[in-house]
Amino acid sequence: MIIVMKPNAGEGDINHVIEKVREVGCKEILLEGTSRKVIAVIGDKRDIPPDFWDAIPGVEKAVPILTPYKIASREVKKADTEIRINNKILGGKKIGVIAGPCAVENQDQILFIAEGVKKAGAIALRGGAFKPRSSPYSFQGLGEEGLEYLARAREKTGLAIVTEILSSEHIKLVSSYADVLQVGTRNMSNFLLLQAVGESKKPVILKRGMSATLDEFLLAGEYILSHGNPNVILCERGIRTFETHTRFTLSLSVVPELKRLTHLPVIVDPSHGTGVRDLVRPMSKGAVAVGADGLILEVHPDPEKSFVDGPQAITIEEFAKLMEETKAVANAIGREM
Amino acid sequence: MIIVMKPNAGEGDINHVIEKVREVGCKEILLEGTSRKVIAVIGDKRDIPPDFWDAIPGVEKAVPILTPYKIASREVKKADTEIRINNKILGGKKIGVIAGPCAVENQDQILFIAEGVKKAGAIALRGGAFKPRSSPYSFQGLGEEGLEYLARAREKTGLAIVTEILSSEHIKLVSSYADVLQVGTRNMSNFLLLQAVGESKKPVILKRGMSATLDEFLLAGEYILSHGNPNVILCERGIRTFETHTRFTLSLSVVPELKRLTHLPVIVDPSHGTGVRDLVRPMSKGAVAVGADGLILEVHPDPEKSFVDGPQAITIEEFAKLMEETKAVANAIGREM
Amino acid sequence: MIIVMKPNAGEGDINHVIEKVREVGCKEILLEGTSRKVIAVIGDKRDIPPDFWDAIPGVEKAVPILTPYKIASREVKKADTEIRINNKILGGKKIGVIAGPCAVENQDQILFIAEGVKKAGAIALRGGAFKPRSSPYSFQGLGEEGLEYLARAREKTGLAIVTEILSSEHIKLVSSYADVLQVGTRNMSNFLLLQAVGESKKPVILKRGMSATLDEFLLAGEYILSHGNPNVILCERGIRTFETHTRFTLSLSVVPELKRLTHLPVIVDPSHGTGVRDLVRPMSKGAVAVGADGLILEVHPDPEKSFVDGPQAITIEEFAKLMEETKAVANAIGREM
Amino acid sequence: MIIVMKPNAGEGDINHVIEKVREVGCKEILLEGTSRKVIAVIGDKRDIPPDFWDAIPGVEKAVPILTPYKIASREVKKADTEIRINNKILGGKKIGVIAGPCAVENQDQILFIAEGVKKAGAIALRGGAFKPRSSPYSFQGLGEEGLEYLARAREKTGLAIVTEILSSEHIKLVSSYADVLQVGTRNMSNFLLLQAVGESKKPVILKRGMSATLDEFLLAGEYILSHGNPNVILCERGIRTFETHTRFTLSLSVVPELKRLTHLPVIVDPSHGTGVRDLVRPMSKGAVAVGADGLILEVHPDPEKSFVDGPQAITIEEFAKLMEETKAVANAIGREM
Repeated sequence: MIIVMKPNAGEGDINHVIEKVREVGCKEILLEGTSRKVIAVIGDKRDIPPDFWDAIPGVEKAVPILTPYKIASREVKKADTEIRINNKILGGKKIGVIAGPCAVENQDQILFIAEGVKKAGAIALRGGAFKPRSSPYSFQGLGEEGLEYLARAREKTGLAIVTEILSSEHIKLVSSYADVLQVGTRNMSNFLLLQAVGESKKPVILKRGMSATLDEFLLAGEYILSHGNPNVILCERGIRTFETHTRFTLSLSVVPELKRLTHLPVIVDPSHGTGVRDLVRPMSKGAVAVGADGLILEVHPDPEKSFVDGPQAITIEEFAKLMEETKAVANAIGREM
Repeated sequence: MIIVMKPNAGEGDINHVIEKVREVGCKEILLEGTSRKVIAVIGDKRDIPPDFWDAIPGVEKAVPILTPYKIASREVKKADTEIRINNKILGGKKIGVIAGPCAVENQDQILFIAEGVKKAGAIALRGGAFKPRSSPYSFQGLGEEGLEYLARAREKTGLAIVTEILSSEHIKLVSSYADVLQVGTRNMSNFLLLQAVGESKKPVILKRGMSATLDEFLLAGEYILSHGNPNVILCERGIRTFETHTRFTLSLSVVPELKRLTHLPVIVDPSHGTGVRDLVRPMSKGAVAVGADGLILEVHPDPEKSFVDGPQAITIEEFAKLMEETKAVANAIGREM
Repeated sequence: MIIVMKPNAGEGDINHVIEKVREVGCKEILLEGTSRKVIAVIGDKRDIPPDFWDAIPGVEKAVPILTPYKIASREVKKADTEIRINNKILGGKKIGVIAGPCAVENQDQILFIAEGVKKAGAIALRGGAFKPRSSPYSFQGLGEEGLEYLARAREKTGLAIVTEILSSEHIKLVSSYADVLQVGTRNMSNFLLLQAVGESKKPVILKRGMSATLDEFLLAGEYILSHGNPNVILCERGIRTFETHTRFTLSLSVVPELKRLTHLPVIVDPSHGTGVRDLVRPMSKGAVAVGADGLILEVHPDPEKSFVDGPQAITIEEFAKLMEETKAVANAIGREM
Repeated sequence: MIIVMKPNAGEGDINHVIEKVREVGCKEILLEGTSRKVIAVIGDKRDIPPDFWDAIPGVEKAVPILTPYKIASREVKKADTEIRINNKILGGKKIGVIAGPCAVENQDQILFIAEGVKKAGAIALRGGAFKPRSSPYSFQGLGEEGLEYLARAREKTGLAIVTEILSSEHIKLVSSYADVLQVGTRNMSNFLLLQAVGESKKPVILKRGMSATLDEFLLAGEYILSHGNPNVILCERGIRTFETHTRFTLSLSVVPELKRLTHLPVIVDPSHGTGVRDLVRPMSKGAVAVGADGLILEVHPDPEKSFVDGPQAITIEEFAKLMEETKAVANAIGREM
């Protein structure tokens, strides 16, 4: 930590900060600049947040040197983490695609889609049984009935099941059906839920909060890791900006940056990240080209009849075409799909 | 709903949309513009989201005419809602101030602060027992022990207790101690929690998500209202923007705009909204000047010893001064405090 | 400047940075942390941007300690700058209000408004003769004819004239009519224009770029100051965020923060900052309550006939009411208007 | 235009709007909804901005149906525009890459880079002679001397010259040297400059303002087109968001969306769009994968000695590698480079 003092900080302020530094078991080095005094704090105390220092009188700002997360950091573990999803691997050389409807609607729908996306090359089936909806008047998902439909689709196709978990109360129920738990963007900072999925051993897809910084995103991952679950997949799904031509701004530069900062696999959700069907195919290719380890996509045989998020779903035919095109890009950058 | 067709939409597309309009029990009016066709949908079907229409082939965009929330709307209830907090009223002519530490630390601390803020004119005491923290390595609150300390502070001072609830699992526990439940910014879209506090009858302070639009904010309020709890207080607490001189951008224009759209009381949190101690006093005056019905503030006798959010806490002395100054502004605009 | 090295930086990298530090005439202090090496650079070299250091191999980031601006800084000049606008003073105890139409439309219009706003207490008249418009098909202003109308309004009322300058080519023409030059939000980073108004001695209202950080805003002011013009008034006019209920998000916390960082006067534009007529009055009161030194407002006798920006203009009657209400707030915080 | 009336709008308000509709030569259709009245305006009057309608009493909002730009619109011209840059074509099947230093520093530097990027396959050389710099204390470019160095580099290599123009005053000077004029992000709304480059016939690279919506961006292009210059190349260069791991958020979904809305070619600037050297290569591949017609890149033989923007420049060797990798992606999506 580097502590920058205010221009008018006196000797008493300086001594007081030094006392605090020693109190937490660190050492200080005092730097006398031309017009400011700066105190460097030596010692790895990631658990002392910058605002501990900011709150001391005379301090202008405290600048952290170390990342606030540790287990997630590439500094701690150099090799890419590969995550086993049933008999498939996500991360490493091979790019994995997860596809399915936004919400499970009925048994026929989910079976039909599962077979379609499997044929086109998906490694897992996504489908929501508990849906977070902005409006209390919207369809909230089929609940356990939806989970049962998903399980039957797994039986028939062998595809792993990915489904969202909304609350730590659901952890037993959802875990008993799902192969991969998904934590949605609105729950990235639901720390009790992060702890619950951390205590589970199921692989977790953690979606970035729509206004989360990368530090916050990686700290959310650290919650899961630090509660004992090493199987965390990070997912960029679009951030909220002033842009209106898409529902969110899909920030693809996050992918190579995350891969520099962490050993965890990183996937992209172009369906929610744009909210626009016609942009899903180009953005899938873009995501793979920048280095994503996978994609998660909304596929619906008849998007206009979709209960939820119809405008961003692609048909099974479009999905097959997307897979083919994206595979060509994957090969061009030396990866497989 | 106004449905704008794509420039190349054919007669078949138009007929198909019209079919859909009738299917949901509405009537259509077809408008033939110079270069586009537009279909107006007549009928109050707020439960059909715009993306139902967006998903139909040939549709460029669907523009809603009605607000998506109903119970929260000023169109439905003209008079300001006043909310009873123990023997005090929030909303209407009088401005109410809620103050206390970010986190409850021990019995002495909370008693000392409670007496201090009561003397200066606060109507309720805030204090966190369950804390949502970005890092798994940060202090997470005292839990039930903290709630007990708060209850004793209420006994001694008569101040109502405001505390955050993080999960629907905690609803019984937290409700048995608190007078007012607080839903934090990171939980504004935790719809299961919104339902749970909706089923409770306790007054709820609902903080705006840091990247929520006003429609999303009011829909979150609608969740609580539609589950039977009319006692919703909306709270602006800063939004995430590109600005870095403050932790968030406190968007004060939200206050008069919300008061136009809804009958619910609106309060402001200048402590989290800026994250900077020196900005709390001016922004409190600003909040009252633009029409806020109340303030919620972090007060700590010794901010640098605060376990959480020290940099934005003000001392009891500063709070007393803030109350005096803000009262003068309240009086200047014809309100009391 | 504090230079944080990458975790894998070697001795060669460190030595290379140290060489660079000495090359620019500074001294270095090497700090060996637990897992990182950090180099503190001693010496006031504000003209070396952080990216000079960022570009050196092995450097992770360079953190500036000093503000990048100097003349604008409160560290350099403690006392508030007061700026003479004809026979009035802006800055200091008294709050000054500038009002008028967005665009000058004709002689009668501008005279009528000038008389109206003068009567209500404005200290200067604003009106655009050269208008920056997003669409090439919109009204672009009357040009010199508009400046003449403004000059005649000054003759009649004694009000100082504030008008926008769009290009350094116009500097002679506009200066020959105007008392105060206004640099609009779209030109805050038009550095040739900033130089031109810097070489003029006229007071300048510099509007914040709609996505400018405070450092960038103050550096834009520094351009004007460093070219010899000390009469710079900073104006917050709303920033671009994800919010849609207003055209921009008026960031009032900027006002007290700027007044801490700089000695220059700070005013607020609630008309452009919200784009909504009904929000102009509350936000004017808010701006004064947080410490603004003045307001700049759009007033039009018949907003719906306004050539430009009708939705945010208030009538002369509303302006008179705004002045009265805002004056009460000014008095409540110990200032005059 | 669709005009939505306020819930309390009376018959007088309605009649008044209808009068206005007829005044501007349009026809109205009155729609009586369940709880609102809506007036559809028939007639192509793109020059009447929505705020003309918003300003009328009783109007809640006016929703435009047509895009505000016309010449730039894909509705008006279906075929992709191809732009001749000396003997090369930008747009269409072939992807063109423009490369060079941020600023021209001396004759040797620019010659050396020109030869390097030509060999690696660039079609044009970029280099700034007039530099827009946030700080008045930073290097502002060599001016005409820099243009001369560029011209000599063209002589030697045959590469077309791309350079930024900062002011309409420079139009003759810069045009006499450059093959392509570049309008920077800070000047996207400098409408006098847009007019000036519109009256020139040189191809123009128009960079998106860092907080411009797509409508604003396309209207800026429309300024150039409507002043007679059809050779407009649009360039996404990153937008300002809350993200801090990159200097800007490079919004790649803009590329396919722009190509749907307009016939103009669209290129991407991954150097400024990220500000981080290590992200330039992945984001270049991403840009091509989503459908960009070209790239503009900063290349410097010795980035740490670069006068400007060193941290984002890549070396000539890295550029050669980028070209090779990007070409593979281009081929994978059926394009050439």
